[in-house]
Amino acid sequence: MDRPTARDPIITLTTDFGLQDAYVASMKGVILGLAPDARIVDISHEIQPQGILEGGYVLSCAFRHFPAGTIHLLAVDPGVGTSRRLLLARTENHYFLAPDNGALGLVFALEPPRVVLHLTSAHYFNPGPSATFHGRDILAPVAARLARGTAPAHFGVPVTDYLPSPLAAPAPQPDGRILLHVIMADRFGNLILNLREEEYHRLRGGAPQGPFSLEISGRVISRLVRTYDDAEGKEPFALFNSGGYLELAIRNGSAASELSCAAGAAAALLP
Amino acid sequence: MDRPTARDPIITLTTDFGLQDAYVASMKGVILGLAPDARIVDISHEIQPQGILEGGYVLSCAFRHFPAGTIHLLAVDPGVGTSRRLLLARTENHYFLAPDNGALGLVFALEPPRVVLHLTSAHYFNPGPSATFHGRDILAPVAARLARGTAPAHFGVPVTDYLPSPLAAPAPQPDGRILLHVIMADRFGNLILNLREEEYHRLRGGAPQGPFSLEISGRVISRLVRTYDDAEGKEPFALFNSGGYLELAIRNGSAASELSCAAGAAAALLP
Amino acid sequence: MDRPTARDPIITLTTDFGLQDAYVASMKGVILGLAPDARIVDISHEIQPQGILEGGYVLSCAFRHFPAGTIHLLAVDPGVGTSRRLLLARTENHYFLAPDNGALGLVFALEPPRVVLHLTSAHYFNPGPSATFHGRDILAPVAARLARGTAPAHFGVPVTDYLPSPLAAPAPQPDGRILLHVIMADRFGNLILNLREEEYHRLRGGAPQGPFSLEISGRVISRLVRTYDDAEGKEPFALFNSGGYLELAIRNGSAASELSCAAGAAAALLP
Repeated sequence: MDRPTARDPIITLTTDFGLQDAYVASMKGVILGLAPDARIVDISHEIQPQGILEGGYVLSCAFRHFPAGTIHLLAVDPGVGTSRRLLLARTENHYFLAPDNGALGLVFALEPPRVVLHLTSAHYFNPGPSATFHGRDILAPVAARLARGTAPAHFGVPVTDYLPSPLAAPAPQPDGRILLHVIMADRFGNLILNLREEEYHRLRGGAPQGPFSLEISGRVISRLVRTYDDAEGKEPFALFNSGGYLELAIRNGSAASELSCAAGAAAALLP
Repeated sequence: MDRPTARDPIITLTTDFGLQDAYVASMKGVILGLAPDARIVDISHEIQPQGILEGGYVLSCAFRHFPAGTIHLLAVDPGVGTSRRLLLARTENHYFLAPDNGALGLVFALEPPRVVLHLTSAHYFNPGPSATFHGRDILAPVAARLARGTAPAHFGVPVTDYLPSPLAAPAPQPDGRILLHVIMADRFGNLILNLREEEYHRLRGGAPQGPFSLEISGRVISRLVRTYDDAEGKEPFALFNSGGYLELAIRNGSAASELSCAAGAAAALLP
Repeated sequence: MDRPTARDPIITLTTDFGLQDAYVASMKGVILGLAPDARIVDISHEIQPQGILEGGYVLSCAFRHFPAGTIHLLAVDPGVGTSRRLLLARTENHYFLAPDNGALGLVFALEPPRVVLHLTSAHYFNPGPSATFHGRDILAPVAARLARGTAPAHFGVPVTDYLPSPLAAPAPQPDGRILLHVIMADRFGNLILNLREEEYHRLRGGAPQGPFSLEISGRVISRLVRTYDDAEGKEPFALFNSGGYLELAIRNGSAASELSCAAGAAAALLP
């Protein structure tokens, strides 16, 4: 009873298109025209305009909850209309379609790509005059054809020089500190850092329960709690959020304001 | 031609998670991983944060329009991370999954629960470290397994001491008045009251067309119209909205401001 | 591999209901109760309240990307509760359900209707007291029954006096100018005009690459670019957007403000 017997292909969408206009629906129409059985799931269309890091972050929180074989389309694309490339990546369990702008960096940190292709097979794209809507005219039809079984290799040529994440990975320093960065401030002012719980435990080795100490904006945060409800008082605290990332928060307040921090800000985990 | 022949299980989602982040999509990924045939329908993810009454109200307006057997997941949960219980309820036609915080009270007023279970069978939950995302890690996998046919009794133990709605039911008084309360002000400032049209007619007995008179905030509203277009002038008026609830409104204005009322305010239907 | 083998009927929804309340979900519940196999796709529920032109514009950008046979439900309906009619239209490839208020005018400019019916067969509507929610109680059940194969002619009687678009079509003048109008300003302040790329080329005849010159608000815009990235400086420019419409924009600014224009404003394409 608990073994699925039939599985339609799943395509997820993450964009900065908003829900007001026809953009997202047009992509869905294209997909359903080519792959009528596809299950389309919205991840978010409220990524801030051209928010490469934010789009990659939201997708990295969600994708591993989807079944193996899911196709994830990420269209946050400041370079649309320029010559930037469009990519198809395959990891152990998932497929990803996105512009070559580093947005997939946070995803690849969780599941490294086994192959990355530059989409060059224009006969798989939709014919049409649009110079400005590659999400609908290129990514959507490729996602649909991939969902219907066309092998990835048909869509383009392997590349290895795709752009890395604009954000450096956690960087252990000679003095034992680990250099981190703020990925983004969410809409509540919580600061998301580029350190995942499993990596924290790995870096900590045998002492995951040891003292926690994070330096940011000239202050030291030493409270690591399990849930928001475990926090008290008005001091900033840290927790690993439901996406698995280290997050700085303040009860009923904005850590971003309190710490005067924004995306890209540096932090350091102290030894 | 008009008899459905195949029916995939339907799971609806009502949350205060918003559509910007990965929360809702992560729940959908979990559901589709376990129940690939499930049809997932969003009811609302824009419930105000921790709006127990609002979440229950919106769900109570929508659920009866879904086919029998639909599973409704309600995740408005100020107590996540605490020891509050999670519930599975079965009514005559529907299933409900929600925290034990009274949010289902307005639903139960329409379809009384036949059985309410406390979700205790942890082997049906998703393994994982999250202390803060029970919607994804507990409610979603239980909804999916229920959709695939696991009998409700497998998920927990019956309870009868679940929390009632934070709002009292319409209360007839010795002097013939019926005491009501404001469930919420909607985004237009319309005030929703806890009186449904069918109950109004029942309480009115043989005189449903008699005079209407509602006291609230020291004022008396005596116009009950059929549609917004039937109202004229700048005085507040009453109507039964498309969800079936008594609503107070003002043309091109906010009844909540005009009457200085908010959720929880008292009102009385006069005899 | 690339030929679809099974196709569930698709129903799209375009409304001004917003996503906060139970309205949209109630329509989906009604549809799935009658047509369990229907694929429901949201086009937009963020049309501005009673925005007839905006709703028709968004639908006209999206509908041709859906497969033939798709049913499009448009519920932007200032006249709900009055005696305005509800329509079912069939074009070459699509079905449309909407109030008789001219909203489908922009759609019909792209695919003329072959038959338009006034929905009169009340036995196909949902029983119920609602005087205010025809989207849920009339349009949704008709869409579902149409999706399940009931022939259009069963739903009503043919009419030819349905309301035209509130906006005139592009109008060539004796002096060679072509009179246009602003359909709407989008949320970025871009002005959408009622001239489509294919019509522009047709009107230009053999000289599509000739000089472009548009007069609006006493100014002349002479730059027609291919993508937003092709534009430079702070002057307004024109391009055909991804929906195929002529659009006036300003880099990092609002053309609506700069040109003091809003929906309905006149413009002229100069010879």
